[in-house]
Amino acid sequence: MQRFALIGAGFIGSVHAQNLASHPDVDFRLVYDIDVQRASALAAQHGAKAAASLDDIFNNDQLDAVFIASSTDSHAQNLRLAADAGLAALVEKPIDLDLETAKSTVAYVERSGIKAMVNFNRRFDSAHAELRDLVRQGSIGSLALLQLTSRGPALPPVDYLKSSGGQFRDQAVHFYDLATWIAGVDPVQIHAFGSALAAPEIAEFGDVDTSISSLLFPDGALAQIDCVRHTGYGYDERIEALGSEGLAESERQRSGHVTLVRKEHARSHGLHGNWFDRVKPTYAASLSAFVKALEEDLDSPITLREGLKSQAIAQAAVRSLSSGHSEAIDYSL
Amino acid sequence: MQRFALIGAGFIGSVHAQNLASHPDVDFRLVYDIDVQRASALAAQHGAKAAASLDDIFNNDQLDAVFIASSTDSHAQNLRLAADAGLAALVEKPIDLDLETAKSTVAYVERSGIKAMVNFNRRFDSAHAELRDLVRQGSIGSLALLQLTSRGPALPPVDYLKSSGGQFRDQAVHFYDLATWIAGVDPVQIHAFGSALAAPEIAEFGDVDTSISSLLFPDGALAQIDCVRHTGYGYDERIEALGSEGLAESERQRSGHVTLVRKEHARSHGLHGNWFDRVKPTYAASLSAFVKALEEDLDSPITLREGLKSQAIAQAAVRSLSSGHSEAIDYSL
Amino acid sequence: MQRFALIGAGFIGSVHAQNLASHPDVDFRLVYDIDVQRASALAAQHGAKAAASLDDIFNNDQLDAVFIASSTDSHAQNLRLAADAGLAALVEKPIDLDLETAKSTVAYVERSGIKAMVNFNRRFDSAHAELRDLVRQGSIGSLALLQLTSRGPALPPVDYLKSSGGQFRDQAVHFYDLATWIAGVDPVQIHAFGSALAAPEIAEFGDVDTSISSLLFPDGALAQIDCVRHTGYGYDERIEALGSEGLAESERQRSGHVTLVRKEHARSHGLHGNWFDRVKPTYAASLSAFVKALEEDLDSPITLREGLKSQAIAQAAVRSLSSGHSEAIDYSL
Amino acid sequence: MQRFALIGAGFIGSVHAQNLASHPDVDFRLVYDIDVQRASALAAQHGAKAAASLDDIFNNDQLDAVFIASSTDSHAQNLRLAADAGLAALVEKPIDLDLETAKSTVAYVERSGIKAMVNFNRRFDSAHAELRDLVRQGSIGSLALLQLTSRGPALPPVDYLKSSGGQFRDQAVHFYDLATWIAGVDPVQIHAFGSALAAPEIAEFGDVDTSISSLLFPDGALAQIDCVRHTGYGYDERIEALGSEGLAESERQRSGHVTLVRKEHARSHGLHGNWFDRVKPTYAASLSAFVKALEEDLDSPITLREGLKSQAIAQAAVRSLSSGHSEAIDYSL
Repeated sequence: MQRFALIGAGFIGSVHAQNLASHPDVDFRLVYDIDVQRASALAAQHGAKAAASLDDIFNNDQLDAVFIASSTDSHAQNLRLAADAGLAALVEKPIDLDLETAKSTVAYVERSGIKAMVNFNRRFDSAHAELRDLVRQGSIGSLALLQLTSRGPALPPVDYLKSSGGQFRDQAVHFYDLATWIAGVDPVQIHAFGSALAAPEIAEFGDVDTSISSLLFPDGALAQIDCVRHTGYGYDERIEALGSEGLAESERQRSGHVTLVRKEHARSHGLHGNWFDRVKPTYAASLSAFVKALEEDLDSPITLREGLKSQAIAQAAVRSLSSGHSEAIDYSL
Repeated sequence: MQRFALIGAGFIGSVHAQNLASHPDVDFRLVYDIDVQRASALAAQHGAKAAASLDDIFNNDQLDAVFIASSTDSHAQNLRLAADAGLAALVEKPIDLDLETAKSTVAYVERSGIKAMVNFNRRFDSAHAELRDLVRQGSIGSLALLQLTSRGPALPPVDYLKSSGGQFRDQAVHFYDLATWIAGVDPVQIHAFGSALAAPEIAEFGDVDTSISSLLFPDGALAQIDCVRHTGYGYDERIEALGSEGLAESERQRSGHVTLVRKEHARSHGLHGNWFDRVKPTYAASLSAFVKALEEDLDSPITLREGLKSQAIAQAAVRSLSSGHSEAIDYSL
Repeated sequence: MQRFALIGAGFIGSVHAQNLASHPDVDFRLVYDIDVQRASALAAQHGAKAAASLDDIFNNDQLDAVFIASSTDSHAQNLRLAADAGLAALVEKPIDLDLETAKSTVAYVERSGIKAMVNFNRRFDSAHAELRDLVRQGSIGSLALLQLTSRGPALPPVDYLKSSGGQFRDQAVHFYDLATWIAGVDPVQIHAFGSALAAPEIAEFGDVDTSISSLLFPDGALAQIDCVRHTGYGYDERIEALGSEGLAESERQRSGHVTLVRKEHARSHGLHGNWFDRVKPTYAASLSAFVKALEEDLDSPITLREGLKSQAIAQAAVRSLSSGHSEAIDYSL
Repeated sequence: MQRFALIGAGFIGSVHAQNLASHPDVDFRLVYDIDVQRASALAAQHGAKAAASLDDIFNNDQLDAVFIASSTDSHAQNLRLAADAGLAALVEKPIDLDLETAKSTVAYVERSGIKAMVNFNRRFDSAHAELRDLVRQGSIGSLALLQLTSRGPALPPVDYLKSSGGQFRDQAVHFYDLATWIAGVDPVQIHAFGSALAAPEIAEFGDVDTSISSLLFPDGALAQIDCVRHTGYGYDERIEALGSEGLAESERQRSGHVTLVRKEHARSHGLHGNWFDRVKPTYAASLSAFVKALEEDLDSPITLREGLKSQAIAQAAVRSLSSGHSEAIDYSL
């Protein structure tokens, strides 16, 4: 049984609270949020208690682990506190929007020896994981081309976008991680184009809402990633992996199973109305993987260092967008 | 808040226990089973208590409703006890394998005035319900033809089949109910062919494992129902409704979303490995509908009398199988 | 090289003329039609000549074969003339609407020893043929259930229907033939329901436009056939074969390859607008099979006797519709 | 009626010969090939005559048009001869592998005033054309992202590749043309990555077999194009167009319609075994469009200048591959 505290009681925090409360091997004890009332409400809903301060969590010998789902700018500090307290830590990505801060945080945490995992939940999508297994087992021969599609149904609030780090660091980063994880090697070059089409106003702070990234792997394999904030037709996420002997596809998923055929066309359900409906099961699965690693003393399912990698790729994408060149990806720590 | 007792702690009882425990408007109090240990184990798992006897349930002023999921031969007796006790009752189908006993039970329960529902859970399949809505809203014009497919992946144990009442009363009956519910009128004639192909030994007690039923509705609309116990390829359930202006389809559902394309073929996931994976959500939904009817004092979502209808159809199917004729369906009470 | 005459210059005759003219091993010589101008026009279009009378065909030592695509009531007489003349004959179904006449015609033709084929063109649909191969090779284990769907987009003219022999003899007969051909054995019992839903006026002459037929094979395998004259959504033909180890499907075919996904739904092309768009390639293929049989002196690809079988099934379906019973199928000659 | 000569009697010439012979408004007169026997054989097959020399074609007042399907290095010279002779010309792409030669040829031909068309046959794919219509009619709102996939089943002979101009000029150029044609504006920047994965030996002459191109349009819309010479699973071509209000897709097309479902998976037919099976109908359609333009004196369906555009894009892709930068596309004449 792992005794957990949760930091952050916002939307995603409430998802984690539900999963923590339902997990048979988790004793969900404390919730902290800068908004104390929000923490109390969420804690009450799941039989946990609200922590009055972070000190209640990090100076507490009745805890094993902390789930850091607070605002992005506090991830690094909370990770360091967990390292100091000797608590295992599962942290939402990114470690820090500033790559240098992220690197020094990872180095600090690694020295502490705590078990830490960055929450790239999409790796736990069952279809994506099955595709990766096919690739790694050689079912498509040797990998030649990856195509990853990430398209959200509607623009997030501009305020969210302003503090998100931009489309490459916030949205594409998940797919840089998936591409690297599926390929099993780190890409060496990236090129990116991007435009602010759905929300021209976000160009003012240098962001884009429609972008394509091209990746080159050391053995010559290639990847294409298209990211769109606003589709107008629903949430659309899928992956293709083409190899020397075949193609594996984690398909676009529809939200319904009824077709209506009339004179002029066949109508089927559209896609999921929002990203959360599609990825919800991955959160419980990623938590389970972390808890299993704690219970059985396994390696972290996704190390912080792996989190740095996709952040380094995103950083190079941002550079490419402004330089107009393809950029070498710098993974140095 | 509705205070519930559950009778029956077998496989399906354990499904109901989970749903009762999770429902926000249900106070799940008691579990009874002829196997006391089984009742205790299931009760403990969900924070309920084991009832030592049926009397603990039917002579108990701290209960509002009972969920009857005991063996088929006790359904009628438990319904009568619920009627006597004034407890609302949700009962697994059938009311009784013997149609005359079922009829007299329904008459008895109706006189008591309790709210009672027969659990034709497939009506709560979201795709089937959406198809029905399309039909009833006129999206396909006037109904001409229904095609219902019910195919299980593997033969149930022969012992189960022996006491099941046979394929028409046990499996097809769900689809007779769906056909009637979608059409909105009661069929008047039925013809059935059936064979014992997967398990020739069940022919000894008059059962079949592969059957086709043809229904004629009063306005001339038709229905085809094919029922198979053993497909060898997974659980396959779907419905088509053809009308004067179009076709609506509740599609065959696949259990996965990954395709592998190689030189000679495209491979996709097969179907669900068992019926329960496919229909599981319908059990929670049917319970919710019943609880809602109790909370808001609505009519029973599926009256016992509706349960009699599909049983009358199954009875006529059995007659047709032996007579070789199409048979009129007798709905008289 | 086979020297052919064509009898019948109507719509289907013009299809055959095109195929005769294009076939590398056919010398297309003569066209006869009771409407001489129609014959002349069709002949001119394809480099053939118009025959002034049937005698030009049946008393002509420069011919090897005749394609009989005249009106149904002249099939039998033309077959007898071909038999007398020693010409190979490919005849549109049915041999005669009257089963007794058809039987005596077949007996007469068989005595003559000419090579004769009844044109059940759907056997040459490449998808249906592939499904049959899968069934016959054991890819689905032993056959348990066939489901055949035949749905036309729009009601043919009532005048056509009046002389068609009715839905069972005119439309369903193709699918009785396919079912028998796929199963590889002859069904022994049939039950049919039918209604005049799209065109209530055809009930006056005993016809139906929506029907379901149930077939029982000697080994207990079953078949369902649904036939609809008017779907409102396009031409819909498909076949499923379920066996002890799997399912083979000749799928519903769409006429386009473009999908449009918008907020509320995904729109795909509907089905073929008419039956001919779907089955056109089968006519060239059936002609090729016949020519091949002539060139290489092979057995007739589909003997007249096989044509009688499906007609006998249709006859029993008609009896079942009026008797309300399932009927034994009488294949006696 | 348009009197045509064909130059080139190789594989693609024989396709054009068939289409010329079948077209009702074409009088197919002459075939020229440097291999006289090949020309004679093809001419004889289609009722045309072999031309002894190019002079028989370009000094011949009995011709209206010439179809130039000779080897790539003779396209420009044959176009100039057609211009001098006043013959309309339909020419296979590219006009010349050398962009400067192509430009001067276009200028020369334009001065002559003959009607000339470059044969980007894929624009006549019915599904691609339908997708373009949806885009141009605003069915997906304003265009944001195009994704074009071009994947051949097997590596062409290395000798062919050596003289092909490389993957960008030979294969991708079709999709640069489609992207420009669908978007309705010319892209301004391109970035390309490419690798020789299936045939490492082609890297010796600077070619690649797996490449991804990224295009930026002036209004910020983006396009991704992936080109693969060898898939191992069949020919795979499709297009997606994403806009502000929806998605249109010209789908991956399968070559069959039979599915086999067994215990572990559903097997469907794979894709077309080669590119020609998929695109064959486009050749007849593009010829028809050209003939129509001649008969009705319409503008050329695809001007030579449009042919230069996609060649300029390919040229920039080649530069990008070696520079590692995104490159501006130079459309100057």
